[in-house]
Amino acid sequence: MDVTIVDRRNHHLFQPLLYQVATASLNPSEIAAPIRRILRRQRNVEVVLGNAVRVDRAARKVLLMDGELGYDYLVLATGVTHSYFGHEEWAEHAPGLKTLSDALEMRRKIFVAFEAAEREPPGEGRDAWMTFVIVGAGPTGVELAGALAEITRHTLRSDFRHIDPRSARVILVEGAARVLPAMKERLSGKAQHQLQRLGVQVRTNAQVTCIDEAGVSVGDEHIRARSVFWAAGVSASPLGRTLGVPLDRAGRVQVNRDLTLPGDDRVYVIGDLASLQQDGRPVPGGAPAAMQQGRHAAGNIERALLGEELKPFRYFDKGTLATIGRASGVADIRGLQLSGGLAWFCWLLVHIWFLIGFRNRFVVMLEWARAYLTYEKQARLIAEEVNVLLADPDDSVVGRPESAA
Amino acid sequence: MDVTIVDRRNHHLFQPLLYQVATASLNPSEIAAPIRRILRRQRNVEVVLGNAVRVDRAARKVLLMDGELGYDYLVLATGVTHSYFGHEEWAEHAPGLKTLSDALEMRRKIFVAFEAAEREPPGEGRDAWMTFVIVGAGPTGVELAGALAEITRHTLRSDFRHIDPRSARVILVEGAARVLPAMKERLSGKAQHQLQRLGVQVRTNAQVTCIDEAGVSVGDEHIRARSVFWAAGVSASPLGRTLGVPLDRAGRVQVNRDLTLPGDDRVYVIGDLASLQQDGRPVPGGAPAAMQQGRHAAGNIERALLGEELKPFRYFDKGTLATIGRASGVADIRGLQLSGGLAWFCWLLVHIWFLIGFRNRFVVMLEWARAYLTYEKQARLIAEEVNVLLADPDDSVVGRPESAA
Repeated sequence: MDVTIVDRRNHHLFQPLLYQVATASLNPSEIAAPIRRILRRQRNVEVVLGNAVRVDRAARKVLLMDGELGYDYLVLATGVTHSYFGHEEWAEHAPGLKTLSDALEMRRKIFVAFEAAEREPPGEGRDAWMTFVIVGAGPTGVELAGALAEITRHTLRSDFRHIDPRSARVILVEGAARVLPAMKERLSGKAQHQLQRLGVQVRTNAQVTCIDEAGVSVGDEHIRARSVFWAAGVSASPLGRTLGVPLDRAGRVQVNRDLTLPGDDRVYVIGDLASLQQDGRPVPGGAPAAMQQGRHAAGNIERALLGEELKPFRYFDKGTLATIGRASGVADIRGLQLSGGLAWFCWLLVHIWFLIGFRNRFVVMLEWARAYLTYEKQARLIAEEVNVLLADPDDSVVGRPESAA
Repeated sequence: MDVTIVDRRNHHLFQPLLYQVATASLNPSEIAAPIRRILRRQRNVEVVLGNAVRVDRAARKVLLMDGELGYDYLVLATGVTHSYFGHEEWAEHAPGLKTLSDALEMRRKIFVAFEAAEREPPGEGRDAWMTFVIVGAGPTGVELAGALAEITRHTLRSDFRHIDPRSARVILVEGAARVLPAMKERLSGKAQHQLQRLGVQVRTNAQVTCIDEAGVSVGDEHIRARSVFWAAGVSASPLGRTLGVPLDRAGRVQVNRDLTLPGDDRVYVIGDLASLQQDGRPVPGGAPAAMQQGRHAAGNIERALLGEELKPFRYFDKGTLATIGRASGVADIRGLQLSGGLAWFCWLLVHIWFLIGFRNRFVVMLEWARAYLTYEKQARLIAEEVNVLLADPDDSVVGRPESAA
């Protein structure tokens, strides 16, 4: 059996830790590994760096931007991307967090904001640089808010001369009635409490009505903020639309119980791109379900090649976890509800375990141990040069005024 | 005494190891540290992220792109940038290596080239992707060529299915008669021998006459190459031109023996931007001289404030070092000439020693130990997505052709 894997990036990314790259705790290479390296010993696997744009099921081909690939069996796992609920103009002002580039851009925005605040005179302009709004209080939004609050309270504490980073505001906006709406109500309450203890302002039942350069409108209120981050909606990869099969409301592909496409057992769809019901409820998105589906699809293809009957997929829920800053978090592990230090420790073990490759696990553990002891963020770098921070150069006489020696 | 430090980047960069970021051995944060963090305990130091565009000596002001700063004493250390000997159109095809962004772009080019070669059919097109030309055989060019040869011979050896990375050509082009022209002739010979043993093709007395998308012309020969890197000329930072004083041919500022500007003892120029003769020879560029000058300028400013006489600067030559791949290199330490493993070990000690901050030293040492044992490059990541690798999509049917199951 020959396997070809196509990706438009050269690395496999451990997405659950992406927010730690965005908040400068980890380096990109600590949560990502070249796909070729992961699969180098698998001599029957070929890795192609390419961007798949269309599936031609009649011809059994995947069309790339610059080529095409024939298939006997196709497994589609192109996932989801950000969705701004029809307000694509918000994207420019409120970047999301799906890729390494996203994370590095978010990091740049965060640290440039403090640099700009340091150079602004006190007042509304400075306050806008010191205000960070995160839209969406799912796991990514919660973890990002916690990490940002820590940066302002600890990491940057003694680095500036004109601003006090501790006075920065971190505002977490959620449309639903509580943070982490997918978790049990009690854990949502615990998470919100832990966020507030870190200094995060939590606004639930809050609908974002506008995002522009000046900030965010939440209902009737306008929050002046230079840094707005998007952790709210997702929509399915556009590749699903080229299959010519029914999609659900979010653009996901409705698959059979055996993960094949209705009417085409040569095509499997797995991960966040697949829509599947189990016991009357949707199988959740995220890495655990995707990993189980990957293994299951491989098994079914093997069965098909051997002429055996395909087996239906069954999702096994191992639990959900979220971390909130330093030594706190919430966890729901098969009904066992944890919060605080114990939940955080579970989170730590699970994430270290699933990181690919021994080297990354070891380095990330070292980094976290160091960060825990020192509050330092190693990766506070802006690679690009910064030319203009301030919109209005008249405000910008910095440093002490000229004086005689 | 209040000190303001202005930089257009937020980090101090340990430039001698930049080629290791370009060749994916190190992460950016391992050779760079936020300026604020380095100086956080110095309460009388203020850090400004800004781009200085002009010095107004009459008004004693430095003009930034978005503001201005008054000074009593000014120390200019803006260094040098790439120079393409009047062929600025080459810059686009032959990027240089001065900043973290440069290094990440070079890394992207290197690893994308192998991906593209893997997808090209055998022939001239593939060979052009597998050919790497480095222009300039000073320390940066030599170290880059050595590291590139190692990547092709070892790191990527088993990662591809259609190409053999070991067949990649690494060509080092130098206009002078020998590599490392600033070192003693015997050591140049040793260095060239070590490069050739690694598989690098060395061309000395070779003048580059053209660089474009298709490759490099060296004299009458045209080398088809998709990846050309510039390690040849430098010219002084344009800020020197705004001082209104005589510059040397490379645009450097001719300073007094005490490092002040002729006719203005409020302005010091140090590092690669300064031009200074000592015993009839120019003080060399690079970190060792710059560090000595920084310390000296600070001392002279203190003397001026105390009403004492300024002291002339004297450069103390501690030696020169270059590394060439794994466990080899050349060193000239006050007349003592070393090559091979011992020179490499000296290089290792010196570079670890001068890295800023305990954490970086420790992590870099770990990385190097691991890399030495495994030949692995941890940071082989291209953050951006890659859409089109191949110029001509007709060549690009990849993977096995469609066949019946």
